[in-house]
Amino acid sequence: MSAEELLNQIKEEVIKRAPGNAVITDVQFEGPEVVIYAKNPEIFTNSFIKELARDLKKRIAIRPDPSVLLDPEIAKKKILEIVPDDAEITNCIFDANTGEVIIESKKPGLVIGKEGSTLEEIKKAIRWAPKPVRTPPIPSETIKAIRATLYRERADVKEILRRIGRRIHRDIKIREDYWVRVSFLGGAREVGRTCLYLQTPDSRVLIDCGINIAVEGDRAYPHFDAPEFSIEEIDAVVITHAHLDHCGFVPGLFRYGYDGPVYCTRPTRDLMTLLFKDYLDIAEKEGKDVPYTAKDIKTCVKHTIPIDYGVTTDITPTIKLTLHNAGHILGSAIAHCHIGDGQYNIAYTGDIKFEASRLLEPAVCQFPRLETLIIESTYGSFDDVLPEKEETEKELLKIVSETLQRGGKVLIPVFGVGRAQELMLVLEEGYNQGVFNAPVYLDGMIWEATAIHTAYPEYLSKVIRNRIFHEGDNPFLSEVFKRVGSTNERRRVIDSDEPCIILATSGMLTGGPSVEYFKNLAPDEKNTLVFVGYQAEGTLGRKVQKGWKEIPITTKNGKTKSIPIKMEIHTLEGFSGHSDRKQLIKYLRKLKPMPERILMIHGEANKCIDLASTAYKLFKRETRAPMNLDSIRVK
Amino acid sequence: MSAEELLNQIKEEVIKRAPGNAVITDVQFEGPEVVIYAKNPEIFTNSFIKELARDLKKRIAIRPDPSVLLDPEIAKKKILEIVPDDAEITNCIFDANTGEVIIESKKPGLVIGKEGSTLEEIKKAIRWAPKPVRTPPIPSETIKAIRATLYRERADVKEILRRIGRRIHRDIKIREDYWVRVSFLGGAREVGRTCLYLQTPDSRVLIDCGINIAVEGDRAYPHFDAPEFSIEEIDAVVITHAHLDHCGFVPGLFRYGYDGPVYCTRPTRDLMTLLFKDYLDIAEKEGKDVPYTAKDIKTCVKHTIPIDYGVTTDITPTIKLTLHNAGHILGSAIAHCHIGDGQYNIAYTGDIKFEASRLLEPAVCQFPRLETLIIESTYGSFDDVLPEKEETEKELLKIVSETLQRGGKVLIPVFGVGRAQELMLVLEEGYNQGVFNAPVYLDGMIWEATAIHTAYPEYLSKVIRNRIFHEGDNPFLSEVFKRVGSTNERRRVIDSDEPCIILATSGMLTGGPSVEYFKNLAPDEKNTLVFVGYQAEGTLGRKVQKGWKEIPITTKNGKTKSIPIKMEIHTLEGFSGHSDRKQLIKYLRKLKPMPERILMIHGEANKCIDLASTAYKLFKRETRAPMNLDSIRVK
Ligand SMILES: [Zn+2]
Ligand SMILES: [Zn+2]
Ligand SMILES: [Zn+2]
Ligand SMILES: [Zn+2]
Ligand SMILES: [Zn+2]
Repeated sequence: MSAEELLNQIKEEVIKRAPGNAVITDVQFEGPEVVIYAKNPEIFTNSFIKELARDLKKRIAIRPDPSVLLDPEIAKKKILEIVPDDAEITNCIFDANTGEVIIESKKPGLVIGKEGSTLEEIKKAIRWAPKPVRTPPIPSETIKAIRATLYRERADVKEILRRIGRRIHRDIKIREDYWVRVSFLGGAREVGRTCLYLQTPDSRVLIDCGINIAVEGDRAYPHFDAPEFSIEEIDAVVITHAHLDHCGFVPGLFRYGYDGPVYCTRPTRDLMTLLFKDYLDIAEKEGKDVPYTAKDIKTCVKHTIPIDYGVTTDITPTIKLTLHNAGHILGSAIAHCHIGDGQYNIAYTGDIKFEASRLLEPAVCQFPRLETLIIESTYGSFDDVLPEKEETEKELLKIVSETLQRGGKVLIPVFGVGRAQELMLVLEEGYNQGVFNAPVYLDGMIWEATAIHTAYPEYLSKVIRNRIFHEGDNPFLSEVFKRVGSTNERRRVIDSDEPCIILATSGMLTGGPSVEYFKNLAPDEKNTLVFVGYQAEGTLGRKVQKGWKEIPITTKNGKTKSIPIKMEIHTLEGFSGHSDRKQLIKYLRKLKPMPERILMIHGEANKCIDLASTAYKLFKRETRAPMNLDSIRVK
Repeated sequence: MSAEELLNQIKEEVIKRAPGNAVITDVQFEGPEVVIYAKNPEIFTNSFIKELARDLKKRIAIRPDPSVLLDPEIAKKKILEIVPDDAEITNCIFDANTGEVIIESKKPGLVIGKEGSTLEEIKKAIRWAPKPVRTPPIPSETIKAIRATLYRERADVKEILRRIGRRIHRDIKIREDYWVRVSFLGGAREVGRTCLYLQTPDSRVLIDCGINIAVEGDRAYPHFDAPEFSIEEIDAVVITHAHLDHCGFVPGLFRYGYDGPVYCTRPTRDLMTLLFKDYLDIAEKEGKDVPYTAKDIKTCVKHTIPIDYGVTTDITPTIKLTLHNAGHILGSAIAHCHIGDGQYNIAYTGDIKFEASRLLEPAVCQFPRLETLIIESTYGSFDDVLPEKEETEKELLKIVSETLQRGGKVLIPVFGVGRAQELMLVLEEGYNQGVFNAPVYLDGMIWEATAIHTAYPEYLSKVIRNRIFHEGDNPFLSEVFKRVGSTNERRRVIDSDEPCIILATSGMLTGGPSVEYFKNLAPDEKNTLVFVGYQAEGTLGRKVQKGWKEIPITTKNGKTKSIPIKMEIHTLEGFSGHSDRKQLIKYLRKLKPMPERILMIHGEANKCIDLASTAYKLFKRETRAPMNLDSIRVK
């Protein structure tokens, strides 16, 4: 049956079942959803939608017909009239594609009203479906820009969604000897340029599409020269999380002709957009090649279909995708693909943390079905056991308080997304407990990344969520944090005698504000440098870590001078966003169900091989550390 | 450098080196060769050619410019004038593409003349290069038809060769991270539809492309639905031997758009052409689908570039192919591919016999270099040890003489290519030694297949070759063999009371003359049936082997009647053209050099897995039994 015929069949079913007074104006495939447009969407009950979804095995959305929606300007005025001023509405965001209006206010309870009475009133007056949310405590430029793009280009976005919808529901012929296969285009026996290519006779899905920012040339990008890879044939791109080694090439896909959907969580969409832009900025400054432009990033945003954890979505005629929390960074996901009629299930962990961090819940380890697991192996080797988190935190606070006490400054070069926020939570607690009393300066992209974190409290750990929602005690808003927003402000932080803590990007001293701070703070033995992440070979961070006593630097006027390193240097390994070997094995132990086959990727060759060999011995399942360009048939 | 530029460079070099009086009219890429056309080709010495080949790293051929060649009709008259009548010339075959004339005669010595004087005279008179050969003792219709096609369509063939030549010598860019990969499109963990797809960043080579004649539907053909497979991208097709499970689909490739070369030995070309036609005939009679027509078989012949054992040939810009004797059937080969500048070597055994048979020498087991071996596993399982050949031969002769003595007939259903000729040699010896005295009737395609064997004595075992060349004692010409050439003749064999032996196709009683004989001979207990090959599940042969006492058959007028089976039934397993488990392991033991990786295919799943596991234990190399659609990176 063609998509057209299927849609007509669904239309008939919808009309047959709908309440007699329903005025249905259209039924459409939009992305993975069946969208019913009605002049009176409010008359469709939740149970109607649920039953329809169950019977059709589709995600169903009911939306107001655009003709009944009030003009956004007028609608906004109406909202402000209806809602009491005490609610302190800060923003109304109209999503023309869903017919929803997000009403941001300081007191969302007042927007809802008694038993939802205010909401009802709003809905009747403007017809848009009101979604009251708490005003994010730190406004995000990234989110604002994404929303603006999606609103401005709503007609285009709608057209994209409908095209995707038709493609998902296209007619296919099922082969007698159905098969499922995964090719590793990058990230096998290496870290960087992670890219998996899932293939069945009828479907092609790219899962992650990263770049290796540490190298240049062919090895920086996934193996698009794999004979099975064809950009025109890709049905869907799935992104597990926003780190560039998992998503860095995605805008490039659009540049080279991809025109389909990108599935990921909403935080991943926002964080990766931030990181794409940052990557582009830095590369431009350094005169490096980037395989895309700002325009391609925008195209990518328009093609992104955010999905929440646990919601199962058709992404091709035979593949359903469910994302589950991976515990690694905000919005990070395990991608679970259910292929055919329950025939085959394959999950790819992306990067996982199987331990509660301050920021996030631990990775999900239970699935309805599972035949093949693909797992990261960053710390997969026998000796990759990291120190306990609690110990590491204590150690950090000790270093901090000692440095501050002697009047020094603590510089922590840190990756802006994830690790920075985890450290902020540790420092905030230390400050509250009186371990130290000095400001924590945030420089580089940390502030903006934190803003995105505060926009998605539902993705954070229960503890933090509770503090934000119930206690009105958002740790990221603590008075201890000070934003460094300009080079002047940075200068002032450097020049002042005030003991302080500085979190600054980049995490490996490869550029950005952390290098500025380092150059100025290094010669003073009162100061301390704390590395909290991996320092790659060849980076300034690695040299410092190795104990170099002098670092040659290029001054503004182009001359080279030498800077003596006298500050104290520490490395703390326990803040990793990855599971260490113990946790990886614990993850496999707790995994339900135990799959037939486990494939190890995302680690140096010996780490993948060690983990594969241990897992084989422990669980007596087929395990393997594939190579890039291996293509493994799993069914 | 483009093919054009490269050719110009080669031209300059040739002209620079050529003797002053050489009249070179053209230099061309033709298939894998560089062909130099000259008005006086005789002035180029062998050492000139050898040195040029060595320095250019190309195969060099020197040919007369077509303008100097005498018209074939006139040339033939000249030859007959020059050569004494005693030579008994039976045929002159002009090959317009090489400028050669094959002169078939009963006494080739007289065509050569004293110290080659007659040859010299011929050459001067007609300018074609004369190649004297002994008239094949049994004329082959297949070879005649192939030669006729190649002569009639010589212009087309030349154009094809030039196109292939340019493609082989095309310009390519070498990637930083060069890789080599093999995909299994068929024949992994199964027998039938063998098809390997060798890929590098710049090359695509299909090695074997078989069909499974025992099944219908998707499973009969290789996985052309593999995402990496693209018929337009194939550089070359290499065929190891003429059995349909290795080459049956090749004409279909041309039907679906392939337009490149097929590399195999000359006997393989001829035998596979015979088998394609037979397959087409049978399928037509049974109303089955065949993915090609007679026209596609002809196209295949025109695109076939025969290569001899041991000759290294460029087949893509980075892959060189060498074929080595596989000992399995006439012309069967191990394909050794040398990739890049000595970077990587991969050999695929095709089907091998690692024991001298009466017909052939054992498979080659030494290679200049070898990193990956792909080996067949038909008899790879622990219990796949076949009886000794000598025992089996004795057993056969005993059965034969007992049956004949009691006045019965011996029916041996047999595959026409390979096994039939091996049995002929056993029976010929028995007859000569007086073990029995009765005719051996040959029915079905056996006669024609034998004719092709006698056309290529250089591919037969040393013993047979010696008998043919030196003793003038060609076993295939023994008076004991009688051809059954018509249904009338067959009727006479069946109806006569004369004790006799009948070799008839098909080997599994799935159709053809063997079934006719069986129906008529089965009810008489004096007769004997001897199975000498594998009887697949579902075939009549298997039922008889299992001991069915009655077989329902459809008579000419469409009714079903039952035939009682009273004849004696024997199964002899020792005539296999495959290596049994012992021989396979011996092969790996003798293999030089021992490769890093051994992949097991062409066998039921447990046979491939058993052999892989044993080989791993014995040789401590990576071994694997891949699945269809696995793609394994080997470098
Ligand atoms: Zn990550
Ligand atoms: Zn990663
Ligand atoms: Zn064979
Ligand atoms: Zn052609
Ligand atoms: Zn075979």
